[in-house]
Amino acid sequence: MIKVTLDQIIEYLEKDQHDELRAKINLLHPADAAQIINELPAEYQVKTFSYLSSELASDVIYDLHDELREDILETIQQKRLVEIMGEMDSDEATDIAAELDEHQLKDVLQKIDKEDSDEIKQLLIYDEDTAGGIMQKEIIAVDQEMKRDEIIEYIRGNYEEVENIHYIFVVDKENKLIGILEVTRLLLAKPQRSAKDVMDKEVISAQVNLDQEQVAHIFRKYDIYILPVVDKENHLLGRITVDDIIDVIDEEASEDVYKMVGLESEDKVFTSPISSVRKRLPWLTLNLFTALLVSSVVGVFEGTIARLSFLAVLMPIVAGLGGNSGTQTLTVITRGIALGELTLHNTYRAIFKEITVGIINGFLIGSVAMLIMYFFKGDILLGVILGVSMVCNMFIAGLIGSSIPVIMKTLKIDPALASSVIITMLTDIGGFASFLGLATLLL
Amino acid sequence: MIKVTLDQIIEYLEKDQHDELRAKINLLHPADAAQIINELPAEYQVKTFSYLSSELASDVIYDLHDELREDILETIQQKRLVEIMGEMDSDEATDIAAELDEHQLKDVLQKIDKEDSDEIKQLLIYDEDTAGGIMQKEIIAVDQEMKRDEIIEYIRGNYEEVENIHYIFVVDKENKLIGILEVTRLLLAKPQRSAKDVMDKEVISAQVNLDQEQVAHIFRKYDIYILPVVDKENHLLGRITVDDIIDVIDEEASEDVYKMVGLESEDKVFTSPISSVRKRLPWLTLNLFTALLVSSVVGVFEGTIARLSFLAVLMPIVAGLGGNSGTQTLTVITRGIALGELTLHNTYRAIFKEITVGIINGFLIGSVAMLIMYFFKGDILLGVILGVSMVCNMFIAGLIGSSIPVIMKTLKIDPALASSVIITMLTDIGGFASFLGLATLLL
Repeated sequence: MIKVTLDQIIEYLEKDQHDELRAKINLLHPADAAQIINELPAEYQVKTFSYLSSELASDVIYDLHDELREDILETIQQKRLVEIMGEMDSDEATDIAAELDEHQLKDVLQKIDKEDSDEIKQLLIYDEDTAGGIMQKEIIAVDQEMKRDEIIEYIRGNYEEVENIHYIFVVDKENKLIGILEVTRLLLAKPQRSAKDVMDKEVISAQVNLDQEQVAHIFRKYDIYILPVVDKENHLLGRITVDDIIDVIDEEASEDVYKMVGLESEDKVFTSPISSVRKRLPWLTLNLFTALLVSSVVGVFEGTIARLSFLAVLMPIVAGLGGNSGTQTLTVITRGIALGELTLHNTYRAIFKEITVGIINGFLIGSVAMLIMYFFKGDILLGVILGVSMVCNMFIAGLIGSSIPVIMKTLKIDPALASSVIITMLTDIGGFASFLGLATLLL
Repeated sequence: MIKVTLDQIIEYLEKDQHDELRAKINLLHPADAAQIINELPAEYQVKTFSYLSSELASDVIYDLHDELREDILETIQQKRLVEIMGEMDSDEATDIAAELDEHQLKDVLQKIDKEDSDEIKQLLIYDEDTAGGIMQKEIIAVDQEMKRDEIIEYIRGNYEEVENIHYIFVVDKENKLIGILEVTRLLLAKPQRSAKDVMDKEVISAQVNLDQEQVAHIFRKYDIYILPVVDKENHLLGRITVDDIIDVIDEEASEDVYKMVGLESEDKVFTSPISSVRKRLPWLTLNLFTALLVSSVVGVFEGTIARLSFLAVLMPIVAGLGGNSGTQTLTVITRGIALGELTLHNTYRAIFKEITVGIINGFLIGSVAMLIMYFFKGDILLGVILGVSMVCNMFIAGLIGSSIPVIMKTLKIDPALASSVIITMLTDIGGFASFLGLATLLL
């Protein structure tokens, strides 16, 4: 599909061939244009964006890296911004509006179409992580009494405005949602049929305040492409399309992995170093304190270590395996919660299973470690101590790694926050205490 | 939407009220029926499934937990299996076929419709992680000369067979894909128009052997709902729908998180303990050996530790922070690769950034650690050693955590395999060597 390569664009830029650049880049599919601009050397990005027609720019800007979009919005001329936002769907225009500074926003809302500006104002009210925050106002909604041919004419009048129609919503006189009608069914319906005759009354919808993660679950569960959004009284407010849900799923998946290792979602590949440092520092500071806690537990046994220094040599083995098997359990459980596989009805089974796995693995890995100690150090007691502490450690890993996220979910705290740093701290403490404690008693 | 609750179903089962159970459960949306069966106590699951009509069962079976589906397929009667598979779309029937044992499969393929069986046989050829492995054969494809009303009649004849039509594919005499036609456009077209007049010639398609992760990127990038699949000569073979892509995205996201902590994708919340143990053991064994390697590095400094036992007490701090900051870098980079944000053109910038972040964070956290040492131990030199080793450690974390996944991607190895265990081993070795090495020299 790509009709011009990144290298060609760079060549045009280097040789100042503006007309060729403008001609070529405006032939591209918006997704390809966005990809090329994202990959250009930093000094050419904003400039190349300025050569896009408003229509193309309105589709491209949304797919640019966050940092680049911010740069563009900071330097863009008001007139061009108004043109670009006028071309956008309401959901995307609202996302851009949310990124503007107050002064820019006020100015833009005055200058764009009254209708567009009203829609943006309505959408800006909703929290960006809810159904309302991701829905668009562009919909085809018809009265239940409307006849097939009238509906077709209505669609014709709005075809340019609404992308990806595929489904038409049917409402009563009060704009309450009462049915959904697949365009293909309308195509096959007889002319005298009205909306209520051919619509599907079993309509799945989302409340406007529903969390976007729950909205994604509805799409996942019912395999739908378009979801109407309603208020508490079932008045139709907008719709969510599946392409936006894919973005939500990607975002939530990143967020879950990120939280496990203490990262903030805005910390991406091209976030500036200073901003990444600032975002990671609080968590690393927390981590410093958990490490000090672990260190103070080890400190209790400093006398033993002074006597038997090879214990310190073995400490990384105890810590490493407990931490890793805890992280494995944590990952299985949080992913199960995220995909909706783990519900309150089957939690005990899951925790019991993880503990069992922890004990069995601890026993097996502990035995191998014990044999290695025996063969290389000739010390059976030290091997036994190492082995036993590994069973303790992995038992704790299974128990803590599974129950902490479940408890957090029950308390309505995001289970993905049960980050590996807490689990690792607990397995470290359990592992070192049992290892050094047993050594103090027995050696 | 749910017309009967889990508790009601359990009550029917306990009281042996089979007719009520059958009546109620067959009223449900397949997604709700699947959810209820997934949440039932294990002893009722297979039994409840047996009460579903073949049509409902054909939609439900795909959404059951893997282990439960295996149980059902092992015990199901041949006649019922044939009925159920006869109701399925070709892509889902193929996935089920792939789970049957050879004898069952042969028998089923003989007994279902010739057409269905041919489709399944064709689809079974493709690798399940490719476009061919997830596509379905149910499509509406028309000749470019076909008139609007003929197309409508053709759709009418196939409406029951093909779910979620939304787009019609246009082919030439040799079945080569030449265009795509949105149903909504067909609805608005004049009767005398033929397919080639209203179709969109810019058709995005996927080669049948394309990896499913790349297929998901196409959906993500172009915001499409339906993607035609073609062979090398552009013959139309089938289509992929966006609901199946959501499953792919979930699967790939799980796989990426899983690989980072050494888990196999089949290791889920309800995988049996024995099977989980077996799947996690090889990786924990690898982990035992990386831990032994770290331990042997510490062993080099056993003499120093014997003299200065408080060094052992501080070891968890060095190890913990290096490991965690390495895992953060690794997560940002692998997620960036997975979402296609990081490409070959912008790799250096990303690695350079992570190293910068590592050094700055190491310097800041190292300074705090140094101050803590000074205030609590009154030892400035020990504090400096701890601080310097943390800078080394986090520099290594930034370098290794970013460059290993990038190198793996360049070598076409899955970057998600750059698992935290390797990164942690390297940061541990770097951290301990610099910490204990400096201590040996200076204290």
